[in-house]
Amino acid sequence: MGKVYLVGAGPGAPDLLTLRGARLLAEADIVFFDALVHPGTLALAAKAKKVAVGKRCGQVSTDQRYINGHLVDAAQAHAVVVRLKGGDPMLFGRAQEEIAELETAGVEYEVVPGITAALAASAQLGVSLTRRGVARSVTFATPRVGDGEDESANHWVGSAANADTTVLYMAAGHAATHARELIAAGKSAGTPVICIESATLPEERRVATTLGGLLRGIPGNGGPALLCIGEVYREWLADAQRMRPDAGQRQTTVEQCSLN
Amino acid sequence: MGKVYLVGAGPGAPDLLTLRGARLLAEADIVFFDALVHPGTLALAAKAKKVAVGKRCGQVSTDQRYINGHLVDAAQAHAVVVRLKGGDPMLFGRAQEEIAELETAGVEYEVVPGITAALAASAQLGVSLTRRGVARSVTFATPRVGDGEDESANHWVGSAANADTTVLYMAAGHAATHARELIAAGKSAGTPVICIESATLPEERRVATTLGGLLRGIPGNGGPALLCIGEVYREWLADAQRMRPDAGQRQTTVEQCSLN
Repeated sequence: MGKVYLVGAGPGAPDLLTLRGARLLAEADIVFFDALVHPGTLALAAKAKKVAVGKRCGQVSTDQRYINGHLVDAAQAHAVVVRLKGGDPMLFGRAQEEIAELETAGVEYEVVPGITAALAASAQLGVSLTRRGVARSVTFATPRVGDGEDESANHWVGSAANADTTVLYMAAGHAATHARELIAAGKSAGTPVICIESATLPEERRVATTLGGLLRGIPGNGGPALLCIGEVYREWLADAQRMRPDAGQRQTTVEQCSLN
Repeated sequence: MGKVYLVGAGPGAPDLLTLRGARLLAEADIVFFDALVHPGTLALAAKAKKVAVGKRCGQVSTDQRYINGHLVDAAQAHAVVVRLKGGDPMLFGRAQEEIAELETAGVEYEVVPGITAALAASAQLGVSLTRRGVARSVTFATPRVGDGEDESANHWVGSAANADTTVLYMAAGHAATHARELIAAGKSAGTPVICIESATLPEERRVATTLGGLLRGIPGNGGPALLCIGEVYREWLADAQRMRPDAGQRQTTVEQCSLN
């Protein structure tokens, strides 16, 4: 019986994988990977059979039960099975369902954390999620729009509206709706927002605006995007508005907005 | 003029550093490192001069201005300067002050993200921070107890009490106070809590309880500890209460508590 490793591939750039993740990929006999995993990361699994399971941003395109079952089956046939997931396995993935299936089947497993997109975005922007005197709490959330699938769908607003800094994952497509919800919950329309798409990849793009500006929606190129919201971004947005792009501000667009 | 890299060393275990961080350490001429950085991580900086700046868990033991100034000075003398910080640089560090000083001095810099402790703890516990139908928002916060240093000190409660999952950093020492604040803000006393100390290191310890149980404080061994709070931990706590330690539950203590 083999062992299954749930490995976080990190935000995009292949060299943001952990050393442990890289070692396990090199040892892997078979790798099940998400759609967003970089080809350069997959290439580290030199001797492994590679199976695409086509999940993107937490959406299911391969049936989750199919993935769960395949992990258990693979552990019967191979010593080292890697389930390679974008970002970190324990944040906005469906790792818990995979873990439950492995536990039920008595398959040994280990989780290897990965750099989650919000941390990578912060590094790219040069803006701390927390900052002395400005922010000592940060909320990560995935809002869901009107699908009624689960009752916790609207809980995110209370936490996000009260956090000093908020990062919304998989939310850019309904940015205007989420901005409206946050403003209704008491967040100022002048709160700075930076939308960052494809963070750490060459095609990385940033759009700087405010919650009020976000009400008009946000342009996107189809890459995975984060909405970074909070006072910690005020200086960055003001600099972008003054058209003083520094080395860190590649491909930055400033949407029409007021910081007041 | 050299370049300064602010590198996240990750949660503890040296192989949870990123590939990029490892490469930069190997290239570094000089490394300024925090007290909590593992000797095995430092050893990767084979040719670098190593300077301890003695910060632990965000507390300042070396004056922050001293560190800021030294980074600028080092960039005049060395090509590759690494500032190695525990966890991730952009979460609960003082990176923004270092970045501001580098920008003012016109020194080029880059931030390399690291695995933050909450993600490492989740991997160790095998419990997702988010989970379909249970949790779609997570708050990370550092409460501060009555020092009056900054006015945002109490904002954390609103966000933490409303989040589905909450992870408190640098909070175990005043666990009872924080539990009282969260209960006063509406969080149920039966909410499961896992305190994890020295996550990913051989001396890792877990204490499982509830917010109500936390009112009696929590025993600690002096290592960096997280308080992980939320319904996602209910099953883990129930298993621990039934004394069915699995492979993942090394050094686990269950405090007297009720899950209701």
